[in-house]
Amino acid sequence: MADEYGRLISSLAVANEKRIALLVMDGLGDVDHGGRGTALQQARKPNLDALAARSALGLLVPVATGITPGSGPGHLGLFGYDPMVYEVGRGVLSALGIEFPLESRDVAARLNFCTIDKSGKVVDRRAGRIPDEENRRVLAKIRSRIHPPPGVEVFFETEAEHRAVLVLRGEGLDDRVGDTDPQAVGVEPLAADRPPFDASRTARIVADLLRQVRSILADEPKANMILARGFAKHPDWPKFADRYKLRPAAVAGYPMYRGVARLLGMPVVARPTAAADVCAEAARALKDHTFVFAHFKYTDKTGEDGDLAAKVRRIEEMDAALPVLLEAKPDVLLVTGDHSTPAPLKAHSWHPVPVLMSAPFLRGGDADRFDEIACRRGQIGTILSKELLPLAMAHAGKLEKFGA
Amino acid sequence: MADEYGRLISSLAVANEKRIALLVMDGLGDVDHGGRGTALQQARKPNLDALAARSALGLLVPVATGITPGSGPGHLGLFGYDPMVYEVGRGVLSALGIEFPLESRDVAARLNFCTIDKSGKVVDRRAGRIPDEENRRVLAKIRSRIHPPPGVEVFFETEAEHRAVLVLRGEGLDDRVGDTDPQAVGVEPLAADRPPFDASRTARIVADLLRQVRSILADEPKANMILARGFAKHPDWPKFADRYKLRPAAVAGYPMYRGVARLLGMPVVARPTAAADVCAEAARALKDHTFVFAHFKYTDKTGEDGDLAAKVRRIEEMDAALPVLLEAKPDVLLVTGDHSTPAPLKAHSWHPVPVLMSAPFLRGGDADRFDEIACRRGQIGTILSKELLPLAMAHAGKLEKFGA
Repeated sequence: MADEYGRLISSLAVANEKRIALLVMDGLGDVDHGGRGTALQQARKPNLDALAARSALGLLVPVATGITPGSGPGHLGLFGYDPMVYEVGRGVLSALGIEFPLESRDVAARLNFCTIDKSGKVVDRRAGRIPDEENRRVLAKIRSRIHPPPGVEVFFETEAEHRAVLVLRGEGLDDRVGDTDPQAVGVEPLAADRPPFDASRTARIVADLLRQVRSILADEPKANMILARGFAKHPDWPKFADRYKLRPAAVAGYPMYRGVARLLGMPVVARPTAAADVCAEAARALKDHTFVFAHFKYTDKTGEDGDLAAKVRRIEEMDAALPVLLEAKPDVLLVTGDHSTPAPLKAHSWHPVPVLMSAPFLRGGDADRFDEIACRRGQIGTILSKELLPLAMAHAGKLEKFGA
Repeated sequence: MADEYGRLISSLAVANEKRIALLVMDGLGDVDHGGRGTALQQARKPNLDALAARSALGLLVPVATGITPGSGPGHLGLFGYDPMVYEVGRGVLSALGIEFPLESRDVAARLNFCTIDKSGKVVDRRAGRIPDEENRRVLAKIRSRIHPPPGVEVFFETEAEHRAVLVLRGEGLDDRVGDTDPQAVGVEPLAADRPPFDASRTARIVADLLRQVRSILADEPKANMILARGFAKHPDWPKFADRYKLRPAAVAGYPMYRGVARLLGMPVVARPTAAADVCAEAARALKDHTFVFAHFKYTDKTGEDGDLAAKVRRIEEMDAALPVLLEAKPDVLLVTGDHSTPAPLKAHSWHPVPVLMSAPFLRGGDADRFDEIACRRGQIGTILSKELLPLAMAHAGKLEKFGA
């Protein structure tokens, strides 16, 4: 796919000192709960509602109709990178999630510890979800005994429980490596260098490393093998600062979101998690950046837990914290989510996400509250997430006229 | 054009036992009639209105703004096949319309009987709309005397009145054959093998067959020649069941719609025409299929006749029949049309088509009635027809997350 819209925006971008703040309330969108409305409808949020009354409202489709995005695609959309064009492999996302300093020549994969029986068949694809400490102990054992081939560095890094990350570093490596996770029990792991992957030197290196791992872990009771999938290289994408002529900063307490920011070359300036801290750090970052991405995780977490009451409380927390961010007087303030995480689904969903844009040069006639229903009739309309940042840039005078 | 959205949906599709019902009220959309509203607005339809109150509403653009679709493109869109990507030739649609068992090597064309004068000029492009019996008699005469070249089978099949279908079967045939219908009277039919079509062996075969037909029919009073157009091969498209991991069934009383279903490999399980039978057969099909397409023709037919009162009655008929379908409890129920057929136009139109989706995980705030005006403010918004099935699949839990 071609990124025609993104290239057009980039070609029209001009630098100025106007400041755009993007507050992402992760998983913000919700659905009706038995006729009592969505989490946003149920929350008491006087600051957001007052802001809505002088803002433009709308809905964002993160990827395309019916598509439920992961966190990576959800944020790429908000950063104006079409998630259907800028696809990022699982291995790279996992490496970013633990803030591994990936280089462009690296190949990364997501690892699962698993349990195999004596014949080599997988009996538990998650090795009984071993605790983090056991994960670290077993990886240390692998590190101390593994022999990578000359010219290749190998990194085994803990993520959490049974999850880990593998990074291979060296010249001439590629990502044409087969997933070894058979996605089923009762069968052996797949060979990383099975056809058509046998043409890749990297695949043969991985296959050899995994043979070594099997022998190193032979005496482990649970985590006696690893499964690898999603081999991917760090993508060579346009950097956010160059693409938009913005001076960006990320404020994010969770590694995954810092990782996505770094993928676009966006420096991380603070790592708050609580609503008050997120707003305070975002306000601070606005002093010397023209774009600040601030991430609030708990609206997603509570949605994933299916805990509507907690999600409502988290929205109210952010509402109470908001004045600190408003006092920093961003020229354009965007409040939205990377996707919906409706509590009844306990998962990300495809539902369009409410968005609020406080900016100069608005039309009126929107609502005096911020929720999914009010946003449906807002002046922004229903647009793709990737269209939001260009819209904000337009309101900030950062996009030149197209054509004479 | 590439089918990127369709391929993405297909790559995310997972099978489950949730059941989607698509009730197509053909030509459903309408326009205002002298300030008294559209056909849907005028109809008494308590069941559809009550359903609307607990459903998501919206509007479907069948192909693109301003484009009036034929029945083929209209239905392909509803089946999630972009009509601008999946173009089907007139000949294939005609063959499907009479349920001719097309094979992948076949080339089909639409035929019109016409009347030519002694000099060979067309004087009536429809041969006085001869009755079906005369059509059959004249085709039998052609069949008994025609001599196709070695290795080629030729089928002449009655459609209705002056309309018929030609199918050529053989290896190495192609559809680079010129239309012979001059689309005017007072001129001779065009040659099927005129440049640039003279490079095609198939075009030369057709030209020879039409010369034979002219001599076979020389003594006929009306149908003394045929005009051929829309030469096309059976397209090699992804099958509906594979593309979406659905177990589909079609319930359709008219051949054209069964033909479109078969084009996608969707089995036809019943052929009802009356509203009550359409709903009863759809309910029955839901017992062992995860997708049921049910087609109701009469909203289109009455629109084509320009008979608003009859169209209103047909909507009321379907409304009265609906409870039988509701009792089958589809997990997602879609009610819409393949296009609009406004009575004042007496023809298909480009107007967006009202759609209603009864499904889990909805937001509220839509209307308590089902018509074009209420649908404009619904939570589905205005989307392309091709986005509807993916949306229904999302609500039925049949689409995996995109990216991590």
